[in-house]
Amino acid sequence: MEDFVFHHTLPIQLRFNDVDKFGHVNNTVYFSFYDLGKTEYFATVCPEMDGEKDGVVVVHIEVDFLEQIFASSRIAVQTAVTEIGTKSFVLRQQVIDLDTGDVKCVCSSVMVAYDVQKHESVPLAEKWVEAMCRFEGHDLRRKKR
Amino acid sequence: MEDFVFHHTLPIQLRFNDVDKFGHVNNTVYFSFYDLGKTEYFATVCPEMDGEKDGVVVVHIEVDFLEQIFASSRIAVQTAVTEIGTKSFVLRQQVIDLDTGDVKCVCSSVMVAYDVQKHESVPLAEKWVEAMCRFEGHDLRRKKR
Amino acid sequence: MEDFVFHHTLPIQLRFNDVDKFGHVNNTVYFSFYDLGKTEYFATVCPEMDGEKDGVVVVHIEVDFLEQIFASSRIAVQTAVTEIGTKSFVLRQQVIDLDTGDVKCVCSSVMVAYDVQKHESVPLAEKWVEAMCRFEGHDLRRKKR
Amino acid sequence: MEDFVFHHTLPIQLRFNDVDKFGHVNNTVYFSFYDLGKTEYFATVCPEMDGEKDGVVVVHIEVDFLEQIFASSRIAVQTAVTEIGTKSFVLRQQVIDLDTGDVKCVCSSVMVAYDVQKHESVPLAEKWVEAMCRFEGHDLRRKKR
Repeated sequence: MEDFVFHHTLPIQLRFNDVDKFGHVNNTVYFSFYDLGKTEYFATVCPEMDGEKDGVVVVHIEVDFLEQIFASSRIAVQTAVTEIGTKSFVLRQQVIDLDTGDVKCVCSSVMVAYDVQKHESVPLAEKWVEAMCRFEGHDLRRKKR
Repeated sequence: MEDFVFHHTLPIQLRFNDVDKFGHVNNTVYFSFYDLGKTEYFATVCPEMDGEKDGVVVVHIEVDFLEQIFASSRIAVQTAVTEIGTKSFVLRQQVIDLDTGDVKCVCSSVMVAYDVQKHESVPLAEKWVEAMCRFEGHDLRRKKR
Repeated sequence: MEDFVFHHTLPIQLRFNDVDKFGHVNNTVYFSFYDLGKTEYFATVCPEMDGEKDGVVVVHIEVDFLEQIFASSRIAVQTAVTEIGTKSFVLRQQVIDLDTGDVKCVCSSVMVAYDVQKHESVPLAEKWVEAMCRFEGHDLRRKKR
Repeated sequence: MEDFVFHHTLPIQLRFNDVDKFGHVNNTVYFSFYDLGKTEYFATVCPEMDGEKDGVVVVHIEVDFLEQIFASSRIAVQTAVTEIGTKSFVLRQQVIDLDTGDVKCVCSSVMVAYDVQKHESVPLAEKWVEAMCRFEGHDLRRKKR
């Protein structure tokens, strides 16, 4: 995966209290960066998506913490959809240091589209699938075997 | 005011990231303690108050930071309504150390009742006024002069 | 794994702003619950562990979000060490509803002991290994094959 | 004070969970905006100030909440030192809407310089006084009467 290219990069503004008593950004705060990257990704790729109706929820998240982030670090979160199945889709994200290019932390999330009225998971609407494939530049649909 | 007695005390569970890089609870976090104290106060004193309809908003807040709070401190937030006017009412709060009794931080908020449908401030409903006076044990209505 | 028994349960005090605009506890906040559970677990099981010297850091975390948590939910985080290797150890955690017993979210973390002076990972000290095995009631050391 | 001019403006990146269940930015989060504005102000005006040695602490804060902030708002925090006394100095801040220019919230803080080694408040060092006066464009020293 070393030549993976992200098409969505969002610089993150660190806040004073993101840093814990050890002088580095607290691990729990990383998840708000991923949340922000995800929100902006959907706003860019599927601008008509209405968060009140078209629910998209995380059901599984996996994170590798590679390096510490300090208060003085200039960082960004990068986001891509990497795979779309019939019931779920996969988001790949990473936090990078904008000065060194170092990858600080990588994240993989399994997301599910959700019918807010019926309270049940639904397939991701075809228009969002197409918008995501277009944005990422290739077909993300999981191949049937 | 040294003999002021609070009738509502809520112990606070500190979280790891409440503590900032200086090793003490970050000042900004105190406001979530006051928020929590306020929420529990209203739930206790006005249990039928419906946050979706009966809006109560802060319009002014004043805080004196007296002493640091550390990760190992056992603290509580104390809350009282001290004065009720025709358009607003006043909340007095403080954060105390449960072991030493020391007052860490005191807070005074001006609150306004709010009609969520009409988007305008309204007098505090008489039933809440009475519930607050009953809870505090004396008449809180601001005297006309 | 359905008969897994946790020996460490910490009730969590929810804060007003843990709840996001969808009316449920925001996913990113769960990680502060796990952080708190972990901190209290180590304080209970390895009370002489000195966070300034004996670093223990998360290198990998995996979470399954099973059910929503609401502002009115009474929840707790449960924590156990489940496996200790020569270079890392595994923490298992879950957030439960104290009223229904429902499991809201499960978490598995890979932790590494860290020499804060030398800035390198080290084996978990034997005294902590023993304390954890004693607390969990059985040998957690990963078997060599 | 209507013609007051701020020389320091910092756009704020809102995070998903800044917004509470009422759909607006939670009041408690404003204080992290003020904290961030303050940190950047000192980094700009007194770049050699060393937070580890030259402590500057808030002893009093007063805030007026004028208008709600929504998730879609583009906001900034503005910061100025307005008055410098022998034992304390005053910071004036406000959160504005970058699109409408509306003032959302105003804040006044009393700050005290602090000797981190001796654990006592000290006069603000003359070099910081001068740097602040230079940045603000006029003499901020409180006149003796």
